[in-house]
Amino acid sequence: MAHSTERRNAANREAFGRLCAAEPVLTDVRPAIDVVPGMTRETILTSGPPLAWGDYVGGQRDAVIGGALFEGLADTREDADARLAAGEIKVGGCHDYKCIGSLAGIYTASMPVFVVENRAGANTAFCNMYEGTNPRRLNYGVYDDGVRERLLFVNDVIAPVIGEAVRRAGGIPLKPIMKRALHMGDELHSRNTAASLLFARELFPAMLDQTATRREAVEKTLKALTEDHYFFLRLSMAAAKATADHAHGVEGSSMVTAMAFNCRGFAIRVSGLGDAWFEGPHADVQAKLFEGHSEDEITWMGGESIIAETVGLGGFAQACAFPLQQYQGGTARAMVERNEELYAITIGENPDFHIPFLGYRGTPTGIDVFRVLETRITPAMDIGVAGRDGGQIGAGVVRAPLPCFEAAADAYDTRYSGG
Amino acid sequence: MAHSTERRNAANREAFGRLCAAEPVLTDVRPAIDVVPGMTRETILTSGPPLAWGDYVGGQRDAVIGGALFEGLADTREDADARLAAGEIKVGGCHDYKCIGSLAGIYTASMPVFVVENRAGANTAFCNMYEGTNPRRLNYGVYDDGVRERLLFVNDVIAPVIGEAVRRAGGIPLKPIMKRALHMGDELHSRNTAASLLFARELFPAMLDQTATRREAVEKTLKALTEDHYFFLRLSMAAAKATADHAHGVEGSSMVTAMAFNCRGFAIRVSGLGDAWFEGPHADVQAKLFEGHSEDEITWMGGESIIAETVGLGGFAQACAFPLQQYQGGTARAMVERNEELYAITIGENPDFHIPFLGYRGTPTGIDVFRVLETRITPAMDIGVAGRDGGQIGAGVVRAPLPCFEAAADAYDTRYSGG
Repeated sequence: MAHSTERRNAANREAFGRLCAAEPVLTDVRPAIDVVPGMTRETILTSGPPLAWGDYVGGQRDAVIGGALFEGLADTREDADARLAAGEIKVGGCHDYKCIGSLAGIYTASMPVFVVENRAGANTAFCNMYEGTNPRRLNYGVYDDGVRERLLFVNDVIAPVIGEAVRRAGGIPLKPIMKRALHMGDELHSRNTAASLLFARELFPAMLDQTATRREAVEKTLKALTEDHYFFLRLSMAAAKATADHAHGVEGSSMVTAMAFNCRGFAIRVSGLGDAWFEGPHADVQAKLFEGHSEDEITWMGGESIIAETVGLGGFAQACAFPLQQYQGGTARAMVERNEELYAITIGENPDFHIPFLGYRGTPTGIDVFRVLETRITPAMDIGVAGRDGGQIGAGVVRAPLPCFEAAADAYDTRYSGG
Repeated sequence: MAHSTERRNAANREAFGRLCAAEPVLTDVRPAIDVVPGMTRETILTSGPPLAWGDYVGGQRDAVIGGALFEGLADTREDADARLAAGEIKVGGCHDYKCIGSLAGIYTASMPVFVVENRAGANTAFCNMYEGTNPRRLNYGVYDDGVRERLLFVNDVIAPVIGEAVRRAGGIPLKPIMKRALHMGDELHSRNTAASLLFARELFPAMLDQTATRREAVEKTLKALTEDHYFFLRLSMAAAKATADHAHGVEGSSMVTAMAFNCRGFAIRVSGLGDAWFEGPHADVQAKLFEGHSEDEITWMGGESIIAETVGLGGFAQACAFPLQQYQGGTARAMVERNEELYAITIGENPDFHIPFLGYRGTPTGIDVFRVLETRITPAMDIGVAGRDGGQIGAGVVRAPLPCFEAAADAYDTRYSGG
C-alpha cells in the first residue's frame, strides 16, 4: 500500500518526539558479562555491521585479536586468529548487544560498562570506558603490555569507584549534564571537557564514603575523570544510544537511528526499517593530525560514537564548541555554516540541546533519509582519526556517504510503497 | 619636560607586559582582620573612591550600615549611622586596602577573604566571598536576618573548608583555571560557571582529608562552589586586582589599572598617575532584568568587579561567553562586534586569555586613556544590576563615561608635559 509523504512526515514527527523524550540515566557500572544481554565469555563485540571474521582487516582485526588476548581467550595472536576463524571466539556487532563502540569498539566479557537506562521507556544501553589519554589504545587497534595495564586500571580502579558512587547516588541523570555542557564549549562527541567536570561534580559527594577505604583509588579516579576532553564521551554515547533506540522501530519513519563505521565502510539504520544496515563507502576526512603524522597514515577501523550526531550532538552541535578548532582544525565560521546547513536534513530542532551562538536555537536533530537525498547535504560528524600502525593520530570532520541513504530510500520505497 | 608619544607608548608596553606577566595564586582564606594591611575592627570597606560619610546614599549607604550591624559595631541602624558620622566607625575604599569590592563591596573585620599572591611580583590582593544565590545580599544593599545567616554560613562553614583545602594544596594557581574557563563559555565577570567547576576540581583532592571530621560542611561547600555562575567571580576579581596592581605605577604609562563605581559615579586609576581617581558620571546600562522588575528601579551602589575588564576579561572577553545572552540580554552578533571594537582602545592582545570564536585571538587588554579619547570608544563592562529597594534585579552591559578619561588625560598632560 502506498505510503504518502504525509504519513511519512507524521511517522517522522513521532520518531523525532520519541528521540527528544528519552531520559537517559546512568544507573550502574558492571562487567559486560553481568549485564549485557547475550554476552558470553567467548564473545568479542566490535563496531559497525558485523562481518565474517575473514573480512575484518587492519586495525579493527588487530583490535579484535587484542581483545581476545586481553580476555585470556587465546595465548598468542595466531592462536586468537585460529579460534576466531573457527568460531570458538565469536565476534558480534556492538549495536546488536545494546552496546555502542568507540572507534574499533572492542568489548570483552570482563570489561566494565556504563549501564544507562532510558527512564522514558524500557530500554537500556551500555558503553564501556575510556582507556585514558595515551594515544595507544585497544580501540585504536593496539594491544601491548601498556594497553593491557591501562585496561586493567580501568577494570580494577576506576570502574569500582565510579560504580559504587553511582549506586550510592541512586543513578545520575545524564541529560541535564549534557544540556549544560553544550553551553560550556562541548559538543559531546570530540569535546566533553565540561561534561566530564559536571559529571565529576555529581559523583564527588557520592565518592566521599570511599575515601576511608580506598582513598588512592578515589584520587586516581578523580584525575581520570577530569584530565581529558574525552572521559564523558562514553556516557554521551550510551545516553545517545539509549535515546536513539527509544526512537527506533516507528512504522513508516525514515529517520536515521544509528550510523556506524566498520573497517569496510559506513552504514546507517533507519527507524522504520528494522535492524537492516544500509551501507556505503568510506569518505574523506578533513583531519588535523597530531605532530609527526601524515595523511597517508589515516585508516578506518570502525566507529559508532557518531550515535552522538544521530541524536543532534557532535557535528550537529559544532557551533557550541568553537574550541574544537584547536583539536580538529577548521574555523569558527566554517563550524557555524556547517552546523546551520544541517537544519535542512533534520526533522526538528532539539528542545533540550541548544546552541548559545545561534540565539539558543535547538540543535538540528533527527536525520531524515529523504531530506539528505533531496538536498545532497550529508551528516557531518566529528571523529577521532586512527593511524595505519594503530593509535590515534588526529581528529577531524567527515561527511556520511550518499549511497547508504540511497539504499535506505530504496528499501523504504520497497517496504512502504509496495515498489 | 615634554613626554613624547613614543615614550608614552614604551611605558604602555612596559605596563602591558607587567599586566600580562602576573601570576596570581590563591594561597589562603583568612578573616580580613588577620591579613588585610590597615584593617581594624572598626573599619568597613566599600567600593569606589571613598566619600565622606554624608555623601554615601541609597543602597551603598544601607550596605555600609548593614556591615556595621553584621560586625556588631552598632546595635541599630540609627546607632550605626551616628557612629559612622562621628568617625568611630571608619569607612575605607577597598582598593586602598588591596581589596576589591563586588557591587557595594562591603568588607568587615571578621569576613573571610581570599588571599591571592602575585608570584611574578611581591604584591597581594584580597577579595571576600560570594554570599550565595539569593538576590538579597549585603553587597546589594540589603541587611536582614536572612542576609546575616548567609554571611555567617560563609564565615563558619565554607571559608574554613576552602581555606584548609587551599593550604593543604599548597596554593592554587588561578591563571591556568582562568585560561581554560575562557574556552568553556566564561568571560570571568558575569559568567564563571566553568571556572567554578575547575576550581572545585582543584580543591576536591585537598578536601578529602576533611571528610572524616566535617563531612556535612564539605558537602555544603561543594554545593556552594558549583551551584551558581558566580562563585569564582571573587577569585577572578582578586586575581585581576593582583594583576592590575602589578602593572600600576609605571612612570609615563597611560594604561588604566582600575575602574570602579561608587554610588555617585564612575572612576578610573591610571598606571602612571599614582593613586588619584579620575571621575565621571554614571552611564546607562543595557540591562536584562529579572522577572517582576522594571528599568526605573535600577540604582547604583558601587562596584569594582570591573577590575576584570581592566585586565582583558568580562566585557573584553564577551565573545567567549555567548551563554551570557540568557542572563544579560543581547545577541551573539552584538557580543562579537562589541568585543572586536575594544581592540581599538587597548594596548595589546592578551597572551594567555584567548577567544576561541575569534580564532583564538588574545582578548583586547590594557585600556589606554588616549586611545579611548581618540576613538570615543569606551570600555564595555558586564555588570550585575541593583534595585532601588536592594537586591540584584538583573544584569547587563554598561559603557564607561568619557569624562573620566578626559580628566585622566588632563592630569597626564600636566604631569608629563608640564602643561
